[in-house]
Amino acid sequence: MDRDHILLTPGPLTTTLQTKLAMLRDWGSWDGAFNAVTARVRKSLLAIVHGEDSHVVVPLQGSGTFSVEAAVATLVPRDGHVLVLDNGAYCKRAARLTSMMDRRCTVLPFADHEAVSPAAVRQALVNDSSITHVVLIHCETGAGVLNPLQEVAGLCAEHGRGLIIDAMSSFGAIPIDARSTRFDALIAASGKCLEGVPGMGFVFIRKAVLDACAGRSQSLAMDLHDQYVYMEKTGQWRFTPPTHVVVALAEAIAQFEAEGGQSARLARYTQNFRTLVDGMAALGFKPFLAPDIQAPIIVTFHAPAHPNYDFKRFYEAAKAHGFILYPGKLTQVETFRVGCIGAITAVEMEQAVHAVALALKDLGIPSGVPAGG
Amino acid sequence: MDRDHILLTPGPLTTTLQTKLAMLRDWGSWDGAFNAVTARVRKSLLAIVHGEDSHVVVPLQGSGTFSVEAAVATLVPRDGHVLVLDNGAYCKRAARLTSMMDRRCTVLPFADHEAVSPAAVRQALVNDSSITHVVLIHCETGAGVLNPLQEVAGLCAEHGRGLIIDAMSSFGAIPIDARSTRFDALIAASGKCLEGVPGMGFVFIRKAVLDACAGRSQSLAMDLHDQYVYMEKTGQWRFTPPTHVVVALAEAIAQFEAEGGQSARLARYTQNFRTLVDGMAALGFKPFLAPDIQAPIIVTFHAPAHPNYDFKRFYEAAKAHGFILYPGKLTQVETFRVGCIGAITAVEMEQAVHAVALALKDLGIPSGVPAGG
Repeated sequence: MDRDHILLTPGPLTTTLQTKLAMLRDWGSWDGAFNAVTARVRKSLLAIVHGEDSHVVVPLQGSGTFSVEAAVATLVPRDGHVLVLDNGAYCKRAARLTSMMDRRCTVLPFADHEAVSPAAVRQALVNDSSITHVVLIHCETGAGVLNPLQEVAGLCAEHGRGLIIDAMSSFGAIPIDARSTRFDALIAASGKCLEGVPGMGFVFIRKAVLDACAGRSQSLAMDLHDQYVYMEKTGQWRFTPPTHVVVALAEAIAQFEAEGGQSARLARYTQNFRTLVDGMAALGFKPFLAPDIQAPIIVTFHAPAHPNYDFKRFYEAAKAHGFILYPGKLTQVETFRVGCIGAITAVEMEQAVHAVALALKDLGIPSGVPAGG
Repeated sequence: MDRDHILLTPGPLTTTLQTKLAMLRDWGSWDGAFNAVTARVRKSLLAIVHGEDSHVVVPLQGSGTFSVEAAVATLVPRDGHVLVLDNGAYCKRAARLTSMMDRRCTVLPFADHEAVSPAAVRQALVNDSSITHVVLIHCETGAGVLNPLQEVAGLCAEHGRGLIIDAMSSFGAIPIDARSTRFDALIAASGKCLEGVPGMGFVFIRKAVLDACAGRSQSLAMDLHDQYVYMEKTGQWRFTPPTHVVVALAEAIAQFEAEGGQSARLARYTQNFRTLVDGMAALGFKPFLAPDIQAPIIVTFHAPAHPNYDFKRFYEAAKAHGFILYPGKLTQVETFRVGCIGAITAVEMEQAVHAVALALKDLGIPSGVPAGG
């Protein structure tokens, strides 16, 4: 039958039919009706972080990584110095794009299974006054760690450094309040916890630093200041917007608001997460992370120790039972990942756990117990 | 009623319902089924330019301009020198993005109402041997000029310079044959003559120059070599693809092939174009360009001389009768534009001309005759 598989992946994820139905129209990108959609989306996004007084929001075509690169290109002066707090694959990507654009970049390394340590960040800022900006991944989906945003933001404020937050997989679910958490830029995308379809990102920029951003970007496409100025003047995007993606996001945000906003979304994802972790534990699976640093967004599980286990075969077996899992992204340990986000509830997570149980059975694996577990 | 307006805009444009319906599913970006869609799209795109032997094609997230920037960033060495053949707004944009990324850029200016002159290009190449790459906009949608691709490609081959072609609004409709037209890169996008939805571009790169492109881009997002290598290795996009846009493009390409490919599409657009130009002429409107350089893609018309004319009011009146027009992009002359592309036929163009007639009537304008016309 042609029923969709349920995506347990951290974006693209399963969206509602209502969100997808919004894409059944064509919109003129110059037309007032479409400009009104863009304006409504921007207003709603600002409200989610309570950033109306302190920040602007600039949408950008492309994947979330495009918006991360754009934030660094637009915010960091050419002689700036970026400290990337690295506890995973997305941190390493942020460091790479920073170095590629010839901004000085220092990496402060942490282990994959640890949160960023505020004490180490403080020491790094004290030791090197040339650091102008800190890049923090809020929820590092490489392993699923929730990093200590509030503490890092406090340190950056205290030491007068700019903070750029990649909140790709946390925005909309984990609380972020611009009134009490100071950041120069915060990045997220359409196809994550807002449950839109992928194709655009957006960056919140602190008004106090906005003017100084003019002319910093060496890339026209990535220049968020230019995008912002043009959008304020005309209501339009500089270059052809992904119109269908934008209207899908507007519809997804309306559903987000109707559900009860960030707190309701977090409650649903937390229930998804608990259902998943408890169910997987009953099958013998062990999460990679300690519970105190685990975000309820995506869970990394150790691979089962049984010799019949092979991720590709396990993936195909789970898919045959209706669910799309996600590969691990750790280099040292054999793992796989399961997302808790998207237009799904505990009902689908119960089914997902059952699908994993059936997949194990198909592969002749008696339990998910990992090596040494 | 909630019937869609018909978009007479050069992308986003009116797409078929079948194309939009393809977006009603969610796809895992890591999944084999989605990788197969990407592979199929890439294969079809190469076939359209007969580039299987000579070129690869690299899709990229974002608008078409992102792909233009990516082509320049990936193809042109840091000490390269780009000659932009400038007869319109999109040429100026290409020059701007080249200069911003610190590549040396020289602009060879032409008038908005003229095609690029091969003789002038030859002279420029003879005069300056430091020029490494030439950028040509195939169809300059600023005014709608079709530039002499074959002649410019011949000159670049003869003088050993790389040619980067922005074929955004011509690809799929105007013939381009990689077997007889030499180019290093050619750029187009999903939401133009292939009649997909906007949200991704793609760049054909000549195999002979591909390896040398490694490490040239200062932008991670714009690095087409990196995107290519990763995609060849894994079948996946480096960063989250706009999954729904990609599957819509796959569906649009299937319809393109079923219609009879490029020649059938050109025939339909030419009929749209003739219906438009003839109908508008009967209303007194005068095209901005001479017929011999006018592409059947988008037509720039002089604004009517009548004092009641105001583009915004004219636009709203035409919209009230069901059609979305496009503003002019010329700085010296008051004009507006009408696109001939999208999932429309001469039937819709007849209706469009009638809508324009009704709009004139609504505004109390007896005819479309321009000043001095």
